[in-house]
Amino acid sequence: MEKLKDVLLKVQRGELSVDEALHFLKDLPYEDLGFAKVDHHRALRRGVPEVIFCQGKTPEQVVKIAERMNARGTNIMGTRAGREVFEEVKKAIPDAVYYPDARIFAVIREPVPKNKGLIAVASAGTSDLPVAEEAAVTAELLGNRVERLYDVGVAGIHRLFMNLEVLERAQVIVVVAGMEGALASVVGGIVDKPVIAVPTSVGYGANFNGLSALLTMLNSCASGITVVNIDNGFGAGFAAHLINRLGGTENEAALP
Amino acid sequence: MEKLKDVLLKVQRGELSVDEALHFLKDLPYEDLGFAKVDHHRALRRGVPEVIFCQGKTPEQVVKIAERMNARGTNIMGTRAGREVFEEVKKAIPDAVYYPDARIFAVIREPVPKNKGLIAVASAGTSDLPVAEEAAVTAELLGNRVERLYDVGVAGIHRLFMNLEVLERAQVIVVVAGMEGALASVVGGIVDKPVIAVPTSVGYGANFNGLSALLTMLNSCASGITVVNIDNGFGAGFAAHLINRLGGTENEAALP
Amino acid sequence: MEKLKDVLLKVQRGELSVDEALHFLKDLPYEDLGFAKVDHHRALRRGVPEVIFCQGKTPEQVVKIAERMNARGTNIMGTRAGREVFEEVKKAIPDAVYYPDARIFAVIREPVPKNKGLIAVASAGTSDLPVAEEAAVTAELLGNRVERLYDVGVAGIHRLFMNLEVLERAQVIVVVAGMEGALASVVGGIVDKPVIAVPTSVGYGANFNGLSALLTMLNSCASGITVVNIDNGFGAGFAAHLINRLGGTENEAALP
Amino acid sequence: MEKLKDVLLKVQRGELSVDEALHFLKDLPYEDLGFAKVDHHRALRRGVPEVIFCQGKTPEQVVKIAERMNARGTNIMGTRAGREVFEEVKKAIPDAVYYPDARIFAVIREPVPKNKGLIAVASAGTSDLPVAEEAAVTAELLGNRVERLYDVGVAGIHRLFMNLEVLERAQVIVVVAGMEGALASVVGGIVDKPVIAVPTSVGYGANFNGLSALLTMLNSCASGITVVNIDNGFGAGFAAHLINRLGGTENEAALP
Amino acid sequence: MEKLKDVLLKVQRGELSVDEALHFLKDLPYEDLGFAKVDHHRALRRGVPEVIFCQGKTPEQVVKIAERMNARGTNIMGTRAGREVFEEVKKAIPDAVYYPDARIFAVIREPVPKNKGLIAVASAGTSDLPVAEEAAVTAELLGNRVERLYDVGVAGIHRLFMNLEVLERAQVIVVVAGMEGALASVVGGIVDKPVIAVPTSVGYGANFNGLSALLTMLNSCASGITVVNIDNGFGAGFAAHLINRLGGTENEAALP
Amino acid sequence: MEKLKDVLLKVQRGELSVDEALHFLKDLPYEDLGFAKVDHHRALRRGVPEVIFCQGKTPEQVVKIAERMNARGTNIMGTRAGREVFEEVKKAIPDAVYYPDARIFAVIREPVPKNKGLIAVASAGTSDLPVAEEAAVTAELLGNRVERLYDVGVAGIHRLFMNLEVLERAQVIVVVAGMEGALASVVGGIVDKPVIAVPTSVGYGANFNGLSALLTMLNSCASGITVVNIDNGFGAGFAAHLINRLGGTENEAALP
Amino acid sequence: MEKLKDVLLKVQRGELSVDEALHFLKDLPYEDLGFAKVDHHRALRRGVPEVIFCQGKTPEQVVKIAERMNARGTNIMGTRAGREVFEEVKKAIPDAVYYPDARIFAVIREPVPKNKGLIAVASAGTSDLPVAEEAAVTAELLGNRVERLYDVGVAGIHRLFMNLEVLERAQVIVVVAGMEGALASVVGGIVDKPVIAVPTSVGYGANFNGLSALLTMLNSCASGITVVNIDNGFGAGFAAHLINRLGGTENEAALP
Amino acid sequence: MEKLKDVLLKVQRGELSVDEALHFLKDLPYEDLGFAKVDHHRALRRGVPEVIFCQGKTPEQVVKIAERMNARGTNIMGTRAGREVFEEVKKAIPDAVYYPDARIFAVIREPVPKNKGLIAVASAGTSDLPVAEEAAVTAELLGNRVERLYDVGVAGIHRLFMNLEVLERAQVIVVVAGMEGALASVVGGIVDKPVIAVPTSVGYGANFNGLSALLTMLNSCASGITVVNIDNGFGAGFAAHLINRLGGTENEAALP
Repeated sequence: MEKLKDVLLKVQRGELSVDEALHFLKDLPYEDLGFAKVDHHRALRRGVPEVIFCQGKTPEQVVKIAERMNARGTNIMGTRAGREVFEEVKKAIPDAVYYPDARIFAVIREPVPKNKGLIAVASAGTSDLPVAEEAAVTAELLGNRVERLYDVGVAGIHRLFMNLEVLERAQVIVVVAGMEGALASVVGGIVDKPVIAVPTSVGYGANFNGLSALLTMLNSCASGITVVNIDNGFGAGFAAHLINRLGGTENEAALP
Repeated sequence: MEKLKDVLLKVQRGELSVDEALHFLKDLPYEDLGFAKVDHHRALRRGVPEVIFCQGKTPEQVVKIAERMNARGTNIMGTRAGREVFEEVKKAIPDAVYYPDARIFAVIREPVPKNKGLIAVASAGTSDLPVAEEAAVTAELLGNRVERLYDVGVAGIHRLFMNLEVLERAQVIVVVAGMEGALASVVGGIVDKPVIAVPTSVGYGANFNGLSALLTMLNSCASGITVVNIDNGFGAGFAAHLINRLGGTENEAALP
Repeated sequence: MEKLKDVLLKVQRGELSVDEALHFLKDLPYEDLGFAKVDHHRALRRGVPEVIFCQGKTPEQVVKIAERMNARGTNIMGTRAGREVFEEVKKAIPDAVYYPDARIFAVIREPVPKNKGLIAVASAGTSDLPVAEEAAVTAELLGNRVERLYDVGVAGIHRLFMNLEVLERAQVIVVVAGMEGALASVVGGIVDKPVIAVPTSVGYGANFNGLSALLTMLNSCASGITVVNIDNGFGAGFAAHLINRLGGTENEAALP
Repeated sequence: MEKLKDVLLKVQRGELSVDEALHFLKDLPYEDLGFAKVDHHRALRRGVPEVIFCQGKTPEQVVKIAERMNARGTNIMGTRAGREVFEEVKKAIPDAVYYPDARIFAVIREPVPKNKGLIAVASAGTSDLPVAEEAAVTAELLGNRVERLYDVGVAGIHRLFMNLEVLERAQVIVVVAGMEGALASVVGGIVDKPVIAVPTSVGYGANFNGLSALLTMLNSCASGITVVNIDNGFGAGFAAHLINRLGGTENEAALP
Repeated sequence: MEKLKDVLLKVQRGELSVDEALHFLKDLPYEDLGFAKVDHHRALRRGVPEVIFCQGKTPEQVVKIAERMNARGTNIMGTRAGREVFEEVKKAIPDAVYYPDARIFAVIREPVPKNKGLIAVASAGTSDLPVAEEAAVTAELLGNRVERLYDVGVAGIHRLFMNLEVLERAQVIVVVAGMEGALASVVGGIVDKPVIAVPTSVGYGANFNGLSALLTMLNSCASGITVVNIDNGFGAGFAAHLINRLGGTENEAALP
Repeated sequence: MEKLKDVLLKVQRGELSVDEALHFLKDLPYEDLGFAKVDHHRALRRGVPEVIFCQGKTPEQVVKIAERMNARGTNIMGTRAGREVFEEVKKAIPDAVYYPDARIFAVIREPVPKNKGLIAVASAGTSDLPVAEEAAVTAELLGNRVERLYDVGVAGIHRLFMNLEVLERAQVIVVVAGMEGALASVVGGIVDKPVIAVPTSVGYGANFNGLSALLTMLNSCASGITVVNIDNGFGAGFAAHLINRLGGTENEAALP
Repeated sequence: MEKLKDVLLKVQRGELSVDEALHFLKDLPYEDLGFAKVDHHRALRRGVPEVIFCQGKTPEQVVKIAERMNARGTNIMGTRAGREVFEEVKKAIPDAVYYPDARIFAVIREPVPKNKGLIAVASAGTSDLPVAEEAAVTAELLGNRVERLYDVGVAGIHRLFMNLEVLERAQVIVVVAGMEGALASVVGGIVDKPVIAVPTSVGYGANFNGLSALLTMLNSCASGITVVNIDNGFGAGFAAHLINRLGGTENEAALP
Repeated sequence: MEKLKDVLLKVQRGELSVDEALHFLKDLPYEDLGFAKVDHHRALRRGVPEVIFCQGKTPEQVVKIAERMNARGTNIMGTRAGREVFEEVKKAIPDAVYYPDARIFAVIREPVPKNKGLIAVASAGTSDLPVAEEAAVTAELLGNRVERLYDVGVAGIHRLFMNLEVLERAQVIVVVAGMEGALASVVGGIVDKPVIAVPTSVGYGANFNGLSALLTMLNSCASGITVVNIDNGFGAGFAAHLINRLGGTENEAALP
């Protein structure tokens, strides 16, 4: 809005003709006219990492993007990054760190505002771990405390019931499950909080690459469950962060 | 086998030439040669009702079939029978009885051997009731004791846990669930017995007429679960009966 | 937990033998042991209506359930309720009210805690209105302020841009869209808040009863979007309420 | 139940205050409270192997899990285990054995109760053999006698009819078939026993990785057939065992 | 070809200039140039009825088309014709006849050449009868002898084996089956002749309107089976006729 | 752009303070800022009708929308309008006209610029006629000359070849076909022009409501074919108009 | 039937007691009772090769099967055989021959009866060639004359029209096409003969591995077309042979 | 038409008998009779490259086809050509050029007529680039000016609004988008021109290889959008060229 005000002021002061003003406004980036990104929480955005989705990019492409971001001094996170991608990034940015289970690398440059609430990440089986870690590490890098509750799937449902107090303490719960994906319904049935369900492509036979778990979660009869795409741990972690932020942030920002 | 023996005896006694015998055997119903229905439990079959699948048949057609069966004096059951179908049957066979929730009518002519074991039928929500009742009444008409455990779906999962002793007493468990169908996995995760899962077409949106529950059940990570077709309460009740019969029958047959 | 404590005290005082205690605990409802419903916000739950999903139930069944709830004096809401259902309910509970666009009836008995934050409900086209209203009225009955932003679909996208300040003021945004469902992505691309996307079955041809919009929303490249089932306005309103509640409640409860 | 009894006894004897008892009970594993696994047949469970699903796990992960189980001295079986997985397991547990056709390895530590009844495993074509063997070996390791009836598919249906007496002697029949999966219907049409159908992903063209056989089996017009997931030989073998156990066990347990 | 020859002759005789000839040829219907319908068996076509596919047409439209055909004096058959359609046709063409089971009406004006071979039409269940009759009556109206073998589905497979001699006498076999559609594979496995399989939409649950039977038939492991569209009895009857005609025709044409 | 210029001029002349200007601009409809509808051919738009998609709207809703449009004096067209909808519209706007085959009503208020080029609409079978007419009438109301080439499907392909000169004269060709949809490929194979293919839901069996024709058209091996949604005659007519307009317009606008 | 006669004769002559006969009959292979393979054309079967479907078998398995067949002195054909499979077969059976385009190997041991009629195999594009060759070589090895009409797809449809006389001379036509599969409809529209359509998995995008072509062919509006599974050239060649055989065989058998 | 005229002239002059003429005409390629390719713009076709679809062809096959085309002296383009294919082509045709991003190689032999209008190619994300380039380079090689507008997807929608003037100047717009494919709707909503949408298979989870984007685009509520197959950049570029040509060509042809 400020550039627009500038232009108006110059027209008022006769420093700019109307035609010059029109021409200038026409070339003004859309964003600067105030119609773009509704971002009144800019303060909160400090430290929010810029994200590179590495899948389908060559290591060289990832490095090039990472270096450009690094030059801006912001935090960076790269998702779906294999170790060979990270090795290349590390050559260019030596203090990059790697979370192998989550397949995420990160470059930390500035502190992140910490959200007060807790995010719980529950997963059904060991094979769901990479997706669960993608969600958990994403949430952590965005400034959230995360507690993990793994291997609490329906086949070992007593482990879930033994750890109910983690669910009790959380503000938001991410549930990661493949095969039949029933865990989301069970959790949604016993808590009264936002639950984000992530179907995974883990399974075989008529699992259809996660379709089975996706449909289960969409059709859950427990209220308050919303769903992200199959294997989309990043999306779940990000949405959980946006929700958790509503509960307020600490006074001090900190390194993730 | 008896007709075959008869023929051989007549050949032996010279009452039948070889060519006559061959000709006769060629026309002998396949079944009588002993290669059909492997049925060494014929004793157990006494009282097993003949079944009419009424869906897609006119009331007239159903009545005609029922009358033909009635003439043989066997027990009869008609599934997917609306009340209007039953009314027509009742006119022809006045002592026919109707189970409105199960949409089944039955004609009882002879006692049925009683299986010793108990079949539990659990269902997730009230809308699954017709399918659950179809399974339960089918099992009862085939000579089984049945206990119903309704409305114990994942959204009200504590009701299931409050009634675990029913599952404990049962030999076979039929689980009926629509929407996300998670109940089968939960039950399969806490018992160590044959579980027959029946997906129902109850639900909306991306439920796809029961496909969602079907896939959930097929992909269940709990062992020992097998699945029948969507809404196929009859099939589940029948399979449960075949399994339950393995646990032995009472000495006395009784009216179902 | 209290019953458990009771038992322990009685054992301590010798009023109960260990065997009696064991027997008693075995029969104790699961819920009373404190492992059920994690519900430490019971205070906040005051006024939360009990919900009847009317689809697939006869008016008589709905009335019976509503009367039972009414006897408990809680608020009630019935979703997917046609006017003929409401008429029957009104005979039994004369002060029931009806929201025809949302196909919801409600009985208000006690004040509801008001969440501080605002929920925006945006919809793409006029045909999406019933689902959008289901979400909006659900959120209102649960104690939320709601602003509606209708007919801002991609074909009339300038209307969305003219109303960005509504999105700016909201804490949570529900986006309802059928056909190609692109509105969720556009909104998710310009705000930095939780967005709950509701695909609707509005459309024709290769829309496949909402599958098209569902897939679009699941695959959205904008971060922070989560999805509920096709046409599930209630689910979206409920999840939006759970999220909005994280931002705190007013001191005074009020009638919805 | 024993730990609970212990706690009660200590409270009775004044060795534990009520608060200490409550705190202790809160941390007590759910299972020990007796509400988990409904397992009144613990005697029968002796020798039941613990199962590792190897697909999607690295050989190292499998070895680690196997060693942990081995330390408990129970029987172990690993399914979907390639030979290279087995080789690694063998290094750690030298007396592990391998069933290459079934892709199963096993470690036998204790005798298993033998079920009295016979399980027949019938398969349609040679390519269905790995799934059929997975079912057969699973059932054997769980303590069942198994007879194999391979290559009796519909194209060579006379081979099935030549071996009817195997079906006659069996208590439960597992039918494994890919392509059009018609064998399950044929078997279901001639026997009066529990039939567990396993669709396989064998086939090509519009087979859709086993979907074709899955649908055939779900839609079978023969009563008493239940279905497991595509290629799920283990699940079929396990369910067949649970059913077969209903017919009683031998007095002596034996090595599988 | 004759018109083309005519033109050439006229050019040769100088009765037509080259330009006139070119102009004439340009306007000549494509068909008359001999490149259309490859129809060297015109003699055999005598009596082949013209076909009206009535589904999706109003009775008025059907009557109008039928009258136009009737004016040409050819035989007529109308498929998918409800009785109400037939009643209207009968008013306009009083000697039209109706086959209610096949939902076909016919107007016979001229004798049809009779094929020597026999077509067998086998069907699995009573509900498949309308499609089977559509195939059978179509074949009869095209000049074939047809034998029906109904209710020989896999559940009652002994009835098929009791009637093998019908299959033996046939040149071509049409197999009509819904639900799991296994009958086609069974027939294809025991005969060495062209088998045309017709999946029907009979069934319920995961039958998906005949998709299940369609996939079964396409994936049949028995050689020599080809498939037509779901419920397409007409198509099967027509294809069977084309095949049967290869075995030669009687000297005398006759009324169908 | 003009309102923006106005504001700038007023600021220049001191008639508006900068703050007033900013406030005004904020409220200015997005469109007027020149960033909306890229519409430099406004002249050409004269007479382009406003469109009401009637499906899923009540007659009352359609009438209300039509009256509001009518008040603006523009041309109006309503698609998917049954006769009962038209009857209501006619009561409110007596000179509305109806195209029953196309299920379109129109209100003509001003002349439309005529495109020079010809649009050909070819359809495969009689049942495709409603969709073909929707495309044709749409194009006509938008100011195009249209020639219809109906019933030229692949089964009667010689009729297409006999009418090639229509295709030769057209600038754009709309091809409407159901069942197997092969007509689009055939036309695309013989012309070198833009072809817009419209799959229709006409067919039965494995047609899946038009999916079959849709896939055929998307997979066409003939270059230059683009596809619209199933049954979307309006969309095809509209796209054909946009393309045809590129070939220039007549000097005189005329009533459609 | 002969063994049955034998038994009867022995009973007649007193060489066999009735019980011995019964026992013997029980063990008699089903086939020998004359109820198996309806094969009254045994003479015609001379030379018909035994078939090995090599896909999914190791070279060693194929060789073993081939050697066993070779020992019986019958002709052999192996389909879906890569060159590496053939090389192994050749080592064991040096006079085996290979058709690389068809991926078929054959061992010729005895002359085959020649069918009088001609089979035409038409294919749409070069990539369909392997499937077309599989059909053509299969038909040739079964004793048919085959003419190939390749690359006559809809995009180059004039090439089809230039070669109509091949279609004219054929008794049966196999049409092989991927992508949109329209060629089958075009051919079916211009001939009056049995057409067997083979969809191929050639294509990309929304081709779904041949589903697109499969649906096109099933929905063809041209009568007389039947369909085999995707890429099933062997099935088409085999069915074409069964049909072609109805037109009679030459007096002399010959090497294929 | 010329060969036909020739024949007629020879008949007129007596140089050819009528029978010789008929025989000759019968063998005359269909095309030469003037019924094939409706190609009245032959002048415009000068320079239009012959196209090789390289996917699924070996480098040797591509080279062979390219050499044959090269011998005719026409322009050539090869799509879906990996670099290793190009290297082989370059050996045979040294002046072949390669567009690596578009995976296209080209051989330019003659100038191409230039279309006056501009084609804009917009794409949503970096991963859509190969498909976008295939469209852009195709259009350029066919004689069009192309402007690229990349990375303007919905997540960065302001970039699109900042570049509206490119859309303003274009005659035809190709929109390439994967994941949820919403870009096509946004563009279609703000321009009034032909838009060709290309779904790409970019994405993951429930993207189903581009099906998600395909459905989005087919269901777009913006008018004037037509769709090509998933990833079919070539098809979009070709169709855009056919449309753009309607706006007229420059007087001078030029090298692409």
